[in-house]
Amino acid sequence: MKHFTRISDLGPEGVQQILAKAATWKRERPGAIFTDRILGMVFFNPSLRTRASFEAAMLRHGGHAIVLEVGAGTWKLEDRDGAVMNGDRAEHVREGVPVLGRYADLLAVRTFSGGEGDAVDETDPVINAFRRFSTVPVLSMESAREHPHQGLADLLTIQETHGSTKVPVTLTWAPHIKPLPKAVPNSFLLTAAACGADIRVAHPKGYELAPEVRAEAEAYAAATGGKITYTNDQDAALEGSAAVYAKAWGPSTSSGIEAAPMADLAAWMPTAAHLQKASREAIFIHCLPVRRNLEVHDSVLDGPWSRVVDEAENRFHVQRATIHSLLSQS
Amino acid sequence: MKHFTRISDLGPEGVQQILAKAATWKRERPGAIFTDRILGMVFFNPSLRTRASFEAAMLRHGGHAIVLEVGAGTWKLEDRDGAVMNGDRAEHVREGVPVLGRYADLLAVRTFSGGEGDAVDETDPVINAFRRFSTVPVLSMESAREHPHQGLADLLTIQETHGSTKVPVTLTWAPHIKPLPKAVPNSFLLTAAACGADIRVAHPKGYELAPEVRAEAEAYAAATGGKITYTNDQDAALEGSAAVYAKAWGPSTSSGIEAAPMADLAAWMPTAAHLQKASREAIFIHCLPVRRNLEVHDSVLDGPWSRVVDEAENRFHVQRATIHSLLSQS
Amino acid sequence: MKHFTRISDLGPEGVQQILAKAATWKRERPGAIFTDRILGMVFFNPSLRTRASFEAAMLRHGGHAIVLEVGAGTWKLEDRDGAVMNGDRAEHVREGVPVLGRYADLLAVRTFSGGEGDAVDETDPVINAFRRFSTVPVLSMESAREHPHQGLADLLTIQETHGSTKVPVTLTWAPHIKPLPKAVPNSFLLTAAACGADIRVAHPKGYELAPEVRAEAEAYAAATGGKITYTNDQDAALEGSAAVYAKAWGPSTSSGIEAAPMADLAAWMPTAAHLQKASREAIFIHCLPVRRNLEVHDSVLDGPWSRVVDEAENRFHVQRATIHSLLSQS
Repeated sequence: MKHFTRISDLGPEGVQQILAKAATWKRERPGAIFTDRILGMVFFNPSLRTRASFEAAMLRHGGHAIVLEVGAGTWKLEDRDGAVMNGDRAEHVREGVPVLGRYADLLAVRTFSGGEGDAVDETDPVINAFRRFSTVPVLSMESAREHPHQGLADLLTIQETHGSTKVPVTLTWAPHIKPLPKAVPNSFLLTAAACGADIRVAHPKGYELAPEVRAEAEAYAAATGGKITYTNDQDAALEGSAAVYAKAWGPSTSSGIEAAPMADLAAWMPTAAHLQKASREAIFIHCLPVRRNLEVHDSVLDGPWSRVVDEAENRFHVQRATIHSLLSQS
Repeated sequence: MKHFTRISDLGPEGVQQILAKAATWKRERPGAIFTDRILGMVFFNPSLRTRASFEAAMLRHGGHAIVLEVGAGTWKLEDRDGAVMNGDRAEHVREGVPVLGRYADLLAVRTFSGGEGDAVDETDPVINAFRRFSTVPVLSMESAREHPHQGLADLLTIQETHGSTKVPVTLTWAPHIKPLPKAVPNSFLLTAAACGADIRVAHPKGYELAPEVRAEAEAYAAATGGKITYTNDQDAALEGSAAVYAKAWGPSTSSGIEAAPMADLAAWMPTAAHLQKASREAIFIHCLPVRRNLEVHDSVLDGPWSRVVDEAENRFHVQRATIHSLLSQS
Repeated sequence: MKHFTRISDLGPEGVQQILAKAATWKRERPGAIFTDRILGMVFFNPSLRTRASFEAAMLRHGGHAIVLEVGAGTWKLEDRDGAVMNGDRAEHVREGVPVLGRYADLLAVRTFSGGEGDAVDETDPVINAFRRFSTVPVLSMESAREHPHQGLADLLTIQETHGSTKVPVTLTWAPHIKPLPKAVPNSFLLTAAACGADIRVAHPKGYELAPEVRAEAEAYAAATGGKITYTNDQDAALEGSAAVYAKAWGPSTSSGIEAAPMADLAAWMPTAAHLQKASREAIFIHCLPVRRNLEVHDSVLDGPWSRVVDEAENRFHVQRATIHSLLSQS
């Protein structure tokens, strides 16, 4: 593995290795495994949780992080070959990316979807430009198509609760006031499929995940003995589930990602009543931040099901493992 | 002490312990007392001096700091129980705060007054939400009601100049073009009272400090043998004083904190003539930044009285002591 | 050397010492030469490359950096003596600068030209205020007049390619859509002159560099056996050159720095055809970021000449040397 920006970089076997290493090091803290190593963190979009967890992973083990918040508009990168750069993109990836690799041992990048829809998100232009031009390993801190460390943290949380990832899990769409991209649900689907889970995806009509992502997940499920079911019936998807993941995403239309009509879909918000349809041992997980009483009800987040803070902690653990894996192989 | 966000967390005895430790470690630098410890710094409002001094306190002693600048509006936290989060507050303190505690060993928070007046500032909603939901110790880098590390730095500066804090000190109101909150004068009053000083507070009519803060200061003065006098006569307050603190603050009215009418109150700006009314050994202190020739005259800041840079250095020394105290007890 | 914010702080002999140390330490990495030292980095203007390279220089060798991004307007410093501070400059350099020196071992400052023209840039008010009031060494991360670490990185790149800096080098003006200051071309000229190069400066009529900078460069050339020629004939300047530096800058008029009229001057953009007029061993260098196909053509940047990424890496190497030099002498 040279880079890690998508679950396909690991594949099912690699996912198991990372989860195993993360679980081991959560029990037995490793020593100064990153002595004198520098993680260059490049933020095209803001972050708190992701930033703090990656930075902590370096600092806890003798390493360092350099945080570059390029913001929206401060430093726009051109990635088109042959472009006449007379607009607002002042630097080309052909220079900008390899230069950062002269100062850091690996680069972590956060770049959100531009909201143009699934077809554009599938190409993931910014993070793929980093892959193409970086001379050091590139890690994803979420891009247009995937948020793979979130997917790994989700599955580690399921594994440490149930002792296995080969359990029934539910990914249910939830309401939100904003048009959100699909990187998080994509990553849950892909990682759970790579772990052999029995996945039920529930969403309103018109909120289908992208065909390329679904096909990739099917391939993982076929290899791992997993199963994927899509439904518009939320109750059916919750029945007997061992882990419920709720997440909002917008429909991809010809004009891009749209916001969901809240009035029609408010009943999709998970409540205690929904969780009671799942298994008695079911846990509730969410990538955070979560809008209470709009996306998920207080009774779920304050109830016995919630593992959202543990799940956030697991970001640290899986990231420590992927950073170590990349540095060991580079 | 689990948290330190207000002088009442220390009380008079705790204040003495912190000042003693700060003074000792200013003379004899401690070694790597913060090895592998991470301070998570959360800024709802910007900072240079506070940020640099806290970060230096960690870095000088083997520790690390993760700086999260959430800015005004970037990451608004909901702190009301049961809220339907359909506005601009995208994360609840019930998730956001405990998550940060999974990555850092203690959290430092800066959150200014919203300018709604003394009654709201007394409740100090944001920093108190951190206290309530954090699983690791919380430190104040200034909040609506208090700036306790500034108060400690002020008193350390007085103590190292005069060998005692039981001396006459003056807190005088000063002019400013902006409507400023009272966290800094509150903290000087509370800390000086906790140190047994003979405090004279001078301000124009209508600029009274809040009754809850005054009552707390009276209780400390009663316990330590200190004394507090309020006056509208600046000259009387300066007479024979060993330390003069000048600070602007706005009056709290029914519509919030207001700016002072400059024309009427310009004579309150301390000049060399004012300082000459104090003791021959008097020092001048100020939290910085200071607007020269508006809030304080050049003749004071460039004269023999000024200890403002030493006072700023003392921020580092008292913060090192409080961080150590919190980490030792957690 | 107490501070390093301009080539005149080093002089020709000092430049040679820094280049020698940088070259040695590029081959044989030094150990923990900055243990427990803190670089305070003050950004009045944004930076990615400069920030990452300075921060890496500290972190790679046991040191630390505190990054203060004061932005445009967040923290405006007053530098005029006696000013009545009733505007938007909320802190005076007389307080702000010495305070930072209590937390850090040296201060690095980035402050761009305000675009008012060569006469104002020559006075370099902000960085000179830091020099005047700082109690610790001050380093430039680019100011209005100079970007001296860029100049050092440029000449290190030439030296490691050709084994000498006493070679023909070309500084050619290039087109750009923005009115850019002259700090970068000034620094290339001054550093190359201090290294005894045979410098040809080519630019359109009206784009002359400032007389004070040219006079300083002449003095260095006289001392080092270098030579400086100014011309409006780009082809003549390229003839047989060992290193081509292209850089846009605006003309300084009575109303400040202006943008260049692109239509008239587009032919100044270096292409492969231009580089073929230089020596067979010629290299192409540029401070980055570079606007491809507007300022410099793809055929140059993707051709055999380009050393722009190596040159960016050399920022790290020369900065490590200057930081060490300042800390050794302070």
